[in-house]
Amino acid sequence: MSLSTLPATAFIHPLGHNREAVAALLQAATDRILAHLTQAAQQSPLPPVDALPAIALPELPADATTLLATIDQALTMAMNPAHPGYLGHMDPLPTTASILGDFVVAALNNNMLSVEMSPYFSRLEPLLMREIAHLFGLGDRAGGLLVSGGSLANLQALAVARNVKLRCAQTGLSPLEKPPVLFVSEAAHTSIQKAAMLLGLGTDGAIAIPTNRNSQMDVGALKAAIAQAQEAGQQPFALVATAGTTVTGNIDPLVELGAIAQQHNLWFHVDAAYGGALMFSEAHRDRLRGIEQADSVTFNPQKWLYVTKTCASVLFRDLGHLQRDFQVSAPYMNTEDDWVNLGEISVQGTRHADVLKLWLSLQHLGRQGYRDLIAASETLTQAFVTAIQARPFLELASQPEMNLVCFRGCPDWLPADQWDAWNADLQQYLLREANAFLSLPRYRGQNWLKVVLLNPYTTKEDVGRIFGAIDFFSRD
Amino acid sequence: MSLSTLPATAFIHPLGHNREAVAALLQAATDRILAHLTQAAQQSPLPPVDALPAIALPELPADATTLLATIDQALTMAMNPAHPGYLGHMDPLPTTASILGDFVVAALNNNMLSVEMSPYFSRLEPLLMREIAHLFGLGDRAGGLLVSGGSLANLQALAVARNVKLRCAQTGLSPLEKPPVLFVSEAAHTSIQKAAMLLGLGTDGAIAIPTNRNSQMDVGALKAAIAQAQEAGQQPFALVATAGTTVTGNIDPLVELGAIAQQHNLWFHVDAAYGGALMFSEAHRDRLRGIEQADSVTFNPQKWLYVTKTCASVLFRDLGHLQRDFQVSAPYMNTEDDWVNLGEISVQGTRHADVLKLWLSLQHLGRQGYRDLIAASETLTQAFVTAIQARPFLELASQPEMNLVCFRGCPDWLPADQWDAWNADLQQYLLREANAFLSLPRYRGQNWLKVVLLNPYTTKEDVGRIFGAIDFFSRD
Repeated sequence: MSLSTLPATAFIHPLGHNREAVAALLQAATDRILAHLTQAAQQSPLPPVDALPAIALPELPADATTLLATIDQALTMAMNPAHPGYLGHMDPLPTTASILGDFVVAALNNNMLSVEMSPYFSRLEPLLMREIAHLFGLGDRAGGLLVSGGSLANLQALAVARNVKLRCAQTGLSPLEKPPVLFVSEAAHTSIQKAAMLLGLGTDGAIAIPTNRNSQMDVGALKAAIAQAQEAGQQPFALVATAGTTVTGNIDPLVELGAIAQQHNLWFHVDAAYGGALMFSEAHRDRLRGIEQADSVTFNPQKWLYVTKTCASVLFRDLGHLQRDFQVSAPYMNTEDDWVNLGEISVQGTRHADVLKLWLSLQHLGRQGYRDLIAASETLTQAFVTAIQARPFLELASQPEMNLVCFRGCPDWLPADQWDAWNADLQQYLLREANAFLSLPRYRGQNWLKVVLLNPYTTKEDVGRIFGAIDFFSRD
Repeated sequence: MSLSTLPATAFIHPLGHNREAVAALLQAATDRILAHLTQAAQQSPLPPVDALPAIALPELPADATTLLATIDQALTMAMNPAHPGYLGHMDPLPTTASILGDFVVAALNNNMLSVEMSPYFSRLEPLLMREIAHLFGLGDRAGGLLVSGGSLANLQALAVARNVKLRCAQTGLSPLEKPPVLFVSEAAHTSIQKAAMLLGLGTDGAIAIPTNRNSQMDVGALKAAIAQAQEAGQQPFALVATAGTTVTGNIDPLVELGAIAQQHNLWFHVDAAYGGALMFSEAHRDRLRGIEQADSVTFNPQKWLYVTKTCASVLFRDLGHLQRDFQVSAPYMNTEDDWVNLGEISVQGTRHADVLKLWLSLQHLGRQGYRDLIAASETLTQAFVTAIQARPFLELASQPEMNLVCFRGCPDWLPADQWDAWNADLQQYLLREANAFLSLPRYRGQNWLKVVLLNPYTTKEDVGRIFGAIDFFSRD
């Protein structure tokens, strides 16, 4: 082809004719990335954002200078989770291994749609996911899929649940006599509501169950809701438990919920997107007791396993459901013995290979590394909780069961209707004056402050510094 | 924290204490990637796969040697779309800019869930997608979203279509009097069927319309199917046209289909996942005339714009539908003036930032570069078609309208029931003897050979070589 108008480095020449120029460009990008991340603690955890310049589709090719300027812009204005004071969300600084993995995967540009389009990754993923499903105690027929984010993991699980329990994959919901409903805690992730909407139940079809003071599903309320739905002529088909709620990191009573699901022939899904990581720690995994009863589990290595986004998984007690109760075959794809085209059994078709960075991270850190990270963040969480409990003007939203702490100020020298504003001001103050980013969720109708103690470079001294700033603010 | 058991390079130290070691690891990975891609033409386009070693979750941390060995394994066994003889699927070698983009995005590990979690990317994406929606002629209120793959783009579009036309986001499908159905060509992508299943219509709810000899939806058959559905008491709500079918790359009659959709108050969705790239070429965009009437369009830069996977988009004539008819709000997320938390209006929540690599690629190549790539592959396609037409023992599946050619051998010296096997053998022969990977789709109940002439390093000489091998095989 005559493509003389393209920049010399537009593509990598398959015989290396532009190797030197491409290597220089990669080096320039690497230098910028390293300069940014190795000074992450000297930036803000959440830098201010300049107005973006107007965007227009460029007519002419640009040179490396333009590309590097765009990269600089991205580096400057991005959220900075590598900062030890970045504590606001379940968004970790990434493992080095997962950065490597994403780099390699981009260069190869394979496709998880079919075995033929990703001969290595489409084999590695089911092998690794089976091991992880075994770690969760899901039994001999268990396995899993990676999907691009936790919302899709919950969607995939609930789609299979619906198809299995209501036999509606082919004929849809219209022939059903009763409207299908599922049960989920009011503190669960909104992706369950979204899945209910997508799956044709409507957001009303996800019945929210009240929680106790510790943000855990109230079992009595669940039983009542099941009875009420049955009386109202609805068709309950699934129960969703949460292991690690978004705002407070609490865990629903899994053993009891599993028993109730079995008793009522409900699909039992556990959204352990965050908390599933506890299975990697012998000292902590008991907190998830009951998860081994699940029909499906959402577990996201992109959170507490520190793998770059996205890396989310859905595990099934019986992986065969995906072929029996979900598969849509694609006649244009080759099939290979013993291996499944993952695009046929997933809510996604074309998909990024997220398995390499997961496998590299597990290899690099080992179970021991993850166990130690969990233990270290437990220590930090204790320090954080102790500091809150030492201050009468602060209160916890719940007793932490993971490395999340949700709290707020209730300064009794102010009228209670000013507390929301006080907490919002405190959040901004901590970002501005203490280089600490805490998030500000709405919860039980109030503003709270939330920390997720993921970052291995966050120290007890950092915690002390944050509470020093809180004390200073509260005397203001 | 005391994390002395972790490898020194497990994370990048935010003050650079391990910078040298991390830089060495990145350099080692870069060297491997470059060595692989700059010799891509000397490997097979689809290398043989060794049996994978057994996988177990490792207990202890591993060193760099183990990581690099895993990377080597991935490089060796991956599909090799950088090879000029890789012609089998809509899977391109990636732009250099998109490899850079994925590298930067991995290092930053931001999250498209909310503006707060990706302050730069969550602003860049809507700005850029609005420009692309304008390129498609979708009007002043148009815009779009990136999603992780084309199946999700179609799912998102049809979910909005269903919610808008049937007002069922909250109450689900059960209260509807009539079963909802949509219409789509029999040659369309299977993700439409999958979306119908997910959305509660069931796979039966996607009514397949026959195609003409050119793989385009038969307008008369569509009209008949709409009438039949209405008589049968079904509720038609959407019409899906395809611009670039998976097997033959043909385009449904968009102008006529748009008019029929309007007449019957159907949501008009155009799946231009592949063909949408033609909008970047003034010389070719007229082939998509009618797409400007669409309510929504799927367009995947991960295909003909050569952006690494995934990079798929869904465009809406009225982007406001996403907030009015789809949004599920998340109370734990901050909102910022004028900017939307993209996770609240997308089928996904946490999502990888795919916008940077798209923006970098558009900057690097410019519209001119993409126009020239399209023109060059048109020339190559003509050469391929001419070579087929010169051989009486080959036949085309359809008249190509893009850079896809689908054909097969019908060797009249063999009984017709042996032609499927002959074509399968020819495919293997070309891979083995000519380093050319053509795919082998099933289409109209037969085996066909398919080429997608995307690779800018594929030459007319390569085409000549492939037909030389076909001639040799056919004399065998």
